[in-house]
Amino acid sequence: MNLHGPDEAVFLPLGFLWSATKAGIKASGRTDVALAEAPLGASAAAVFTRNRVAAAPVEVGRAHLRKSKGRVRAVLVNAGNANCATGAQGLEVAEQSCAALGAALEAAPQFIIPSSTGIIGVPLPVEKLVAAVPVVVAGRGGDVDSLKAFATAIMTTDTRMKLASTEIAVGKKTVRIAGVCKGSGMIHPNMATMLVYIFTDLDAESKELQAALKVAVDTTFNAISVDGDTSTNDTVLVMGSGLSKVKLSGSGVAKKFAEALRGVCASLAEQVVRDGEGAQHLVRLQITGAKSVDEARVIARSIANSPLVKTAWAGCDPNWGRILSSVGKSGVAVDPGKINIFFGAQQLCKKGTAHPFDEKQAHEYLKQPEYEIKVELGRGKSSLEFLTCDLTVEYVHINADYST
Amino acid sequence: MNLHGPDEAVFLPLGFLWSATKAGIKASGRTDVALAEAPLGASAAAVFTRNRVAAAPVEVGRAHLRKSKGRVRAVLVNAGNANCATGAQGLEVAEQSCAALGAALEAAPQFIIPSSTGIIGVPLPVEKLVAAVPVVVAGRGGDVDSLKAFATAIMTTDTRMKLASTEIAVGKKTVRIAGVCKGSGMIHPNMATMLVYIFTDLDAESKELQAALKVAVDTTFNAISVDGDTSTNDTVLVMGSGLSKVKLSGSGVAKKFAEALRGVCASLAEQVVRDGEGAQHLVRLQITGAKSVDEARVIARSIANSPLVKTAWAGCDPNWGRILSSVGKSGVAVDPGKINIFFGAQQLCKKGTAHPFDEKQAHEYLKQPEYEIKVELGRGKSSLEFLTCDLTVEYVHINADYST
Repeated sequence: MNLHGPDEAVFLPLGFLWSATKAGIKASGRTDVALAEAPLGASAAAVFTRNRVAAAPVEVGRAHLRKSKGRVRAVLVNAGNANCATGAQGLEVAEQSCAALGAALEAAPQFIIPSSTGIIGVPLPVEKLVAAVPVVVAGRGGDVDSLKAFATAIMTTDTRMKLASTEIAVGKKTVRIAGVCKGSGMIHPNMATMLVYIFTDLDAESKELQAALKVAVDTTFNAISVDGDTSTNDTVLVMGSGLSKVKLSGSGVAKKFAEALRGVCASLAEQVVRDGEGAQHLVRLQITGAKSVDEARVIARSIANSPLVKTAWAGCDPNWGRILSSVGKSGVAVDPGKINIFFGAQQLCKKGTAHPFDEKQAHEYLKQPEYEIKVELGRGKSSLEFLTCDLTVEYVHINADYST
Repeated sequence: MNLHGPDEAVFLPLGFLWSATKAGIKASGRTDVALAEAPLGASAAAVFTRNRVAAAPVEVGRAHLRKSKGRVRAVLVNAGNANCATGAQGLEVAEQSCAALGAALEAAPQFIIPSSTGIIGVPLPVEKLVAAVPVVVAGRGGDVDSLKAFATAIMTTDTRMKLASTEIAVGKKTVRIAGVCKGSGMIHPNMATMLVYIFTDLDAESKELQAALKVAVDTTFNAISVDGDTSTNDTVLVMGSGLSKVKLSGSGVAKKFAEALRGVCASLAEQVVRDGEGAQHLVRLQITGAKSVDEARVIARSIANSPLVKTAWAGCDPNWGRILSSVGKSGVAVDPGKINIFFGAQQLCKKGTAHPFDEKQAHEYLKQPEYEIKVELGRGKSSLEFLTCDLTVEYVHINADYST
C-alpha cells in the first residue's frame, strides 16, 4: 500500500473543501475553528466515545447522523473548549453552531456535524463560534494547504499535525483516502480527546462505510493507549463524496478499501502514540496465541495501562516480571505455565519462568526510541499489535502543573 | 472501638509466638525471615491474590489450608524474594521450607503456611530459608517486641512497620485482635505484594473466620489502590487461637468481632496507602448513591487508577472534569445529569455540569496531606469509602530507576 504520512505528498480525495480561522477560543490565539465540507454531500459513518459522560457535540452529532440517515454536508470543529459537562446549555450551543453553518451553506442543520475539543466544564462561547462561520465559509479551498489548515486548527496539545493518505486503483479509476487527526493521549489538563476525520471519494452507502470503519478502528484506534483514559469527546468520522465514481459494492473494491482504510487509521493511531506527551519510547506490544482479538486487546491494555510496566519502560529496565504479572491480573484465564515473553529477538520468560538472557543487551534494546515486546499466551490463534508508550516524569509534570 | 495504631499499646492476643532473623535474602542485610506460631494450633482463614500468575507460596498455602481443613500451626515468611514465576522448582522450595519448619515444630507440613515477598522470577535460595528455621524457632517470644520483630522482618520497600490492634469485651472475658501488614503499593521494582497477618484469641471455626474475613476485606483491603496493580503474592491470613475462651457463635459475639476485625483491616489498609511510595496526599473517595457496594468500587477504582486524576491531585488542581470523565468511562451506566462532586464541603459539579466554586479555596483544600472527595451518583443507596493517593514524579523516579 502506498501510504503517505504528514510530510509526504497527499492523495487528495475529490469533493471536499476545507478551511480554518482564529475565533479566539484557544488561549494561545492560534487557529481554532475548522470547516470540512462536501459541497455535494457525503455518505458518512462515525464511531463515538463510549464514555457515559459524552460531550454535547457527540450527543448532537449522533442525533444528526440518525436524522440525516448518514448523510453529511459539513463538519464544524472547534478546539480550546470541549463543550462537555455543560448541560442543556451545551446542547443548545452545539445546535446553534450547526444552525448557523447550515444557514450559510443552505443546508438543514441535521446535515452538519459539530465537534469540540479542549477544556471540560466551561461554557463554549457560542458567539465566537457563530462569528467564525462566515469566515471559514469564505475561506474554503480544495487544495492540500486547506486540508492542512483544517488539520492544524483542530490541534490542542499536539506538537505535530497528523495526516495520512493513500489511494486505490480500481480498473482505470482511482479512489483516494485522506485522514487527519488530533490527540496526544488524554494527557493535558482537560485537553482531552482524539478527533479523527477521514475523507474519501469512494461511492458508498453510510451503512457500508460504518461496517468498514468498525473493522478498521478495532485494530487501530482501539489498539492504542497512552494513559488508559477515555475521553468524553472521542470521535472518528468518515465521509465518502462518491466523486471517484467507484462503488464500494463493485467487484473486489470492498476488500481493497478495507485495507486502505485500515492503513490510514493505523498510521494516524501511531502518530497519536508517537506524540504522547512525555513519551520517550513507542512500544509495539505483539500479543499472540490469544483465543480472540478482543482477548488479546484485554491483555494488551492490562500491560499498557500498568504504571509499573510503563515506568520500567521509562527506565529501560528489562523487567519481564511486571509484564507477566499484568497478564495475570487482566482477568483472562491464562495459564502462566504457557506464557513466553520476548524483548525483540531475546526471550526473557519461558513457560512463565525466567529464561536466561543478556541483561546488558536487553537494556540497550530498551534504550531505542521504538521497540517490540511479544507476549505468547499459548491459548489460541488470534493476535493483535497494540501500540503504547512509557510513563515518564515529564508526563507527571505536564499533568500535575496547576494551571487554572 | 478502641483501635490502636503502630505507636500505641498493643492488644496482644493469647496463644501466639513470633520471631524474626536475618537469613541474607534481603540485599540490605536486614531481618528477612519471620515466624508466627500458634503452639496449640489455630483455626485459620485466608484470602489470596486473584492474579492468575500466583506465586508458589500462594499455591502451596492454598493447598495446605485445604488439606489441614483450615488449621494452622505456623506461618513462615521471607522477604526479599517473592518465589514467583519460579515454576515447579519454586513449588518444591516452598514445600521444603514448610517441611523444615514442620519438623522443627513436630507438626505435619500441611499445618505450615509459607509466604514470600520480593523480587519476581529469581529462584528463592532455599538453603538460606531452611538454615533460618532453627534460629527463628529458638527466638520465639509472645511479647509485643516479638510481634514487632515479625512485622519488621516482612517489610520490603515499606518505610514504616504496620500494626493495628483492638479488643472486645464479652461479658467478663476479653477477645484481642492484632494485625500486621506489609505493602506500600505494588510500586517498587518487583517488590510487590501486600501481606497481612491477623492474630486473635477468639474461638472460631475456620469457616466462621473465612466468612468474617471476606466481609472485612471487601470494604478495606479491596477498597484501596496505590497504582492499580495486583500483586502475584497478595495474602490476608487470619488465625484464631481460641485462648480467650470466647466462642464466635456466642450471643452477640459475631457482630462485635466483625466490627473489630473490620477496624483492624481498615487501619492496616490505610497504613498501606499512607506509605504508598512517592505519595503526597491520602485521598478519601466517598462514593455514594450507588446501586451496590461493588458498583461503587468499580467507580472508585476508575477514578483512583486514572493517571490524569492522580496527577491532578499531585498538582493540587481542583480538576473535577477529570473525575467526572473517569466516572463516565467506568463501564457503569451512570446518568451524568445526576452526578454531584464535592471537594470537602465545597461543591464543584452539580448534575454533571460546573457549579460555581472558590478556586483558591479548593486549591488550598487539596494542599492538605489528607482530604475527602465525594461523588454522588444518584443511582441507589449504597456507598463506599475508598482510599487512594496521588501519582507523583517521585513515584516515577522510584519505579523507573534501572536497578538490576
